[in-house]
Amino acid sequence: MSAERPLVRARRLLAWAVEGIPELQAGQDLGAICREPLRVGGGLQPWDVVVVTHKVVSKAEGRVMSLAEVEPSDPALALAQRVGQDPRMVQVILQESRRVIRAEPGVLITETVQGLVCANSGVDRSNVGGGELVTCLPLQPDRSAAGLRRSWLDLAQGGPLGIIISDTFGRPFREGAVNVAIGVAGMPALSDHRGLHDEQGYLLHASTIGSADEIASIGELLMGKIDQVPLAVVRGFSWEGPDDGAGVLQRPAERDIFRR
Amino acid sequence: MSAERPLVRARRLLAWAVEGIPELQAGQDLGAICREPLRVGGGLQPWDVVVVTHKVVSKAEGRVMSLAEVEPSDPALALAQRVGQDPRMVQVILQESRRVIRAEPGVLITETVQGLVCANSGVDRSNVGGGELVTCLPLQPDRSAAGLRRSWLDLAQGGPLGIIISDTFGRPFREGAVNVAIGVAGMPALSDHRGLHDEQGYLLHASTIGSADEIASIGELLMGKIDQVPLAVVRGFSWEGPDDGAGVLQRPAERDIFRR
Repeated sequence: MSAERPLVRARRLLAWAVEGIPELQAGQDLGAICREPLRVGGGLQPWDVVVVTHKVVSKAEGRVMSLAEVEPSDPALALAQRVGQDPRMVQVILQESRRVIRAEPGVLITETVQGLVCANSGVDRSNVGGGELVTCLPLQPDRSAAGLRRSWLDLAQGGPLGIIISDTFGRPFREGAVNVAIGVAGMPALSDHRGLHDEQGYLLHASTIGSADEIASIGELLMGKIDQVPLAVVRGFSWEGPDDGAGVLQRPAERDIFRR
Repeated sequence: MSAERPLVRARRLLAWAVEGIPELQAGQDLGAICREPLRVGGGLQPWDVVVVTHKVVSKAEGRVMSLAEVEPSDPALALAQRVGQDPRMVQVILQESRRVIRAEPGVLITETVQGLVCANSGVDRSNVGGGELVTCLPLQPDRSAAGLRRSWLDLAQGGPLGIIISDTFGRPFREGAVNVAIGVAGMPALSDHRGLHDEQGYLLHASTIGSADEIASIGELLMGKIDQVPLAVVRGFSWEGPDDGAGVLQRPAERDIFRR
């Protein structure tokens, strides 16, 4: 958290799905491929935020592998039996993780190499051209977001321009997954009302907001899951504060009472 | 969950904060008070969703009490010492809860009488006209949402009209609170892509989405925390499926591996 008090605000929002992005192949330049689709309908403006589903970033960065080439280790075989998953899949999940948070039949929650806490280290079997292929999360999602921002900055007349790379996470206590921000560039990921007082002068409590997660959720509502619409644009925000990436959304393990 | 497969979709969204709603008093008719502000700028249309921050619902329903009139019980005194809170506040939190989920210095997470899992049973000290007054969550938020829907349905030409009552919750693993839906009427709270296949015919996984939570998050981005803007309108959705309330967003305790 920065002492600068990041703040993200809007009074009126307009958001849309970006159509016409073709199926990505490994090594393709995602930024270049999306330029024309982003130009449709007037293109980007300063202060726009582009939400990008991580799947296309992962594909472009070659973070796809075939289970046919995976040899499960003994720990992966044991864990696979415990959770009831394909041992090769569990092998990949372990490779993508720092540690296992919960492992029960049907549930495997890890802390990923990126520091995220999610099911299956974010490794995903759908939407990658056949059941043997799996997608892993981008290794450095903030860096991926910063790269896309450089690619598209001129489309937004030099910015400000926010980029959010999203994934869909389940969560404790509540049914239904929601989109969260795993990579952020060009804007703060947290919005901090901590120092503000309400109209009676009472100090506002609990008021650091995961604004990039909330914006990622707008992306989910627009993109859905089946229509190959990997980008959405959200217009209407202004922000102040540091461009310090999505890492500030990760609660450190030692401060997380649900990770003990 | 219903067998009907609820689905909430949008391709383009427009959302705005509703200005001009006066400070509420206990017993006032929130639905009536908001009618004129909701009419500004063309008013509601069919398929609009109105997000209402629970605070104004709680106030209108008289769910405000003064700590000066609260006598802490012995368990409340003991728990208050453990978590470092005002014993009277802890007494109210216990009254509003079914059970304590976590209690540590600075942290008191409960399962509320409504079945929600959140900090301090959702009891809130800010924004209610002085430090001795606290606001509790509406006792039956789905019922409150249905009441507001009836009040405003004619403004939306008879609907469809969705109502979401929101609160701001912290969450495990991630920094920053986000808005969630604690009451829903007129639309499904979950969106279910479970039966859908992707373009390669692979069954989509983990694809029940907490769409009402995601829409509540749009409300948070627009309303912020200090400007007395308790309503936002989100336009652009269509939906199919049951109007079965926000309860479907509550994971049953016996299926929640983080509540054991």
